[in-house]
Amino acid sequence: MSTYLDVGISPGPIPVNHSTNVKVFDSRTKITELVLRCVILGLGVLSAVLVGTDSQVKEFFSIQKEAKFTDMKSLVFLVAANVLAAGYSSIQGLRCIISMVRGRALFSKPLAWAIFSGDQVMAYVTMAAVAAAGQSGMLAKVGQPELQWMKICNMYGKFCNQVGQGIATAFLVSLSMVMLSCISAFSLFRLYGGNKMKNVDW
Amino acid sequence: MSTYLDVGISPGPIPVNHSTNVKVFDSRTKITELVLRCVILGLGVLSAVLVGTDSQVKEFFSIQKEAKFTDMKSLVFLVAANVLAAGYSSIQGLRCIISMVRGRALFSKPLAWAIFSGDQVMAYVTMAAVAAAGQSGMLAKVGQPELQWMKICNMYGKFCNQVGQGIATAFLVSLSMVMLSCISAFSLFRLYGGNKMKNVDW
Repeated sequence: MSTYLDVGISPGPIPVNHSTNVKVFDSRTKITELVLRCVILGLGVLSAVLVGTDSQVKEFFSIQKEAKFTDMKSLVFLVAANVLAAGYSSIQGLRCIISMVRGRALFSKPLAWAIFSGDQVMAYVTMAAVAAAGQSGMLAKVGQPELQWMKICNMYGKFCNQVGQGIATAFLVSLSMVMLSCISAFSLFRLYGGNKMKNVDW
Repeated sequence: MSTYLDVGISPGPIPVNHSTNVKVFDSRTKITELVLRCVILGLGVLSAVLVGTDSQVKEFFSIQKEAKFTDMKSLVFLVAANVLAAGYSSIQGLRCIISMVRGRALFSKPLAWAIFSGDQVMAYVTMAAVAAAGQSGMLAKVGQPELQWMKICNMYGKFCNQVGQGIATAFLVSLSMVMLSCISAFSLFRLYGGNKMKNVDW
């Protein structure tokens, strides 16, 4: 008997046989997934480059001081998270393309679980990186006078602007990851639904 | 025809009729959900109290200075997120209990979507709050000498310790929210699976 409890058991390659509505919806979902993965790849690289290559030199009484992203640990985390998201999305995007070119690929629950888990982790990691970098950015912009942490963006205006753009781009990356994690949750958990499940209450 | 595209259409109250395995799994999932919601309620309140009531007075050359959570915007965000999570969980927990007491409740896709959306938002909000507060906490603990932001935990040791406990508790809250958001994704998306969907590739 096949219930939705049979985690990890692949139904194997079986010819697809479903209505036109479902087919159209499936192909739209696949295309949305591919587009989102490409967006994450592009914006992830852009954000990492914007933050990672940012620097500004200022002279204070003949002493040169350079602001760079490694001065702030949260920006290092942001760059790392974006590089990771871009790399992860390129692999997943490749899988999407292969699956679309082949027309029908064998579907397995373990693969769906792997994609779901990866997307979940990446969504939370990118969101956390944006939150931490955003917090640092706010401190740099407005300071925290109660703690004697002075704002530095009045000195390094160009540097701060570029970091701001990098954080905004990273926010779009994390939003795309959140949407993807919803799609992969859908792809995984609908495998556990039978017709009789439609009437179950929670 | 009922496909998995019929979003928003409630099947209405229909007697539950499924195998023992599924019944056991369902009731275990419900209990897990209720336990997690209670954990979030308890830990959310604990974290908010730990951070919100924390204060320490130090005297510097006859000038008294008090450290409190409002000195750091990220801690205010953390307290707000925890209060929100606790309030949200108490309402959702109540819904769980009512659903369990009634035995069978009418299940509707709009309700499942509402629970799923709420859980997703709360999971990301609590995770972002922990990341931002954690970043501030690290700055307070080790400082950022490149930016002339000095560590303050050597002066306010007791204050910092209690905030650290609050952040750790909030991290448990956000982990529980992540688990809950997976459960509610399962509860929602399995409604969209038919038997024929089991063979579809992605």
